Amino acid sequence: MFIGIAGGSGAGKTTVASRITEGVSDVRVLPLDNYYRDRSMLSPEERVRVNYDHPDAFDWPLVRDHLDALEDGEAIEMPQYDFENHVRTDETIDVQPGSVIVIEGILALYDDAVRERLGLQLYVETDADVRVLRRIRRDVEERDRDLSGVIDQYLSTVKPMHERFVRPTKRHADLIVPEGANDTAVELLRERIQAAV
Amino acid sequence: MFIGIAGGSGAGKTTVASRITEGVSDVRVLPLDNYYRDRSMLSPEERVRVNYDHPDAFDWPLVRDHLDALEDGEAIEMPQYDFENHVRTDETIDVQPGSVIVIEGILALYDDAVRERLGLQLYVETDADVRVLRRIRRDVEERDRDLSGVIDQYLSTVKPMHERFVRPTKRHADLIVPEGANDTAVELLRERIQAAV
Repeated sequence: MFIGIAGGSGAGKTTVASRITEGVSDVRVLPLDNYYRDRSMLSPEERVRVNYDHPDAFDWPLVRDHLDALEDGEAIEMPQYDFENHVRTDETIDVQPGSVIVIEGILALYDDAVRERLGLQLYVETDADVRVLRRIRRDVEERDRDLSGVIDQYLSTVKPMHERFVRPTKRHADLIVPEGANDTAVELLRERIQAAV
Repeated sequence: MFIGIAGGSGAGKTTVASRITEGVSDVRVLPLDNYYRDRSMLSPEERVRVNYDHPDAFDWPLVRDHLDALEDGEAIEMPQYDFENHVRTDETIDVQPGSVIVIEGILALYDDAVRERLGLQLYVETDADVRVLRRIRRDVEERDRDLSGVIDQYLSTVKPMHERFVRPTKRHADLIVPEGANDTAVELLRERIQAAV
């Protein structure tokens, strides 16, 4: 069973992914963030100018190949991404096939060919103010980034790309999960997933 | 199991209600439209001026009483409403208790006390242009109303009341069902309901 979980930055996608698959032993979660294109061929100055909130920032052919491999019962080597230097790290994560595969990320419902592989498409809808505050907390408090830089990036890129590319994918969702993860929604989805494995 | 299904006019609430309860023999659907307050004490001129898209247009105490009665295993006499004359008709519908009770209407998730009784709260989200076209089709083609009157009413009352009272109830929803009723959502909800009866 392939599940896509999309939604804006800070919507609570990871929380939803882990809560609805609780108790499933062989669930595999593929964070779309691991599938950013490798930018090692660009200079450091060029890398900074890349728009990482645009769909072109992702390596869609690799995402599709990996979903196909997992569907065929083959293991994959999931890349890892170094967000500091905008390159793939040397290490990959060995992901074995599982009965539930979750692909989770802002644009998880963006690519037509990815969507075709999904049996359940979820969009996590959370108010934009709540989302931006979560992002600030994560970037400033946890990652020690500069507040004004986080705000600038949000207004110049994250927000317009959200409105242009992320939010429109809501119409592909089978169900919209409001405000992170309420218990009734989580329980209902979890039962469905457990019934499928 | 008590289910509330809310959403704007023309969102497809009735369709969702019937599709997700398909195969449940003793489902009872209470259309909130049957619970408009009786306006027989008002003159015909006054009745026309009532705002029927405002929460005050509904007889909430009766809705609560009926939900309580059904929960206690008692039958109810559901009123019927004459939309032409804005009064309750003389005839009621005998509704026996059932294993699934659905309350469906634009403001099904509005009243706190009603919501407390619901085990599953759904909001059907459909684009406003699609909704208004459904309303026009229904009112003009099926009910033979005047197009310009339908448009005037939509702009002067339906739309502002939707934005003020209906849409904000989306935040109470456990799940949001996009665009009427997609098969995956319907199937998932139906399985849940059938498991509960």
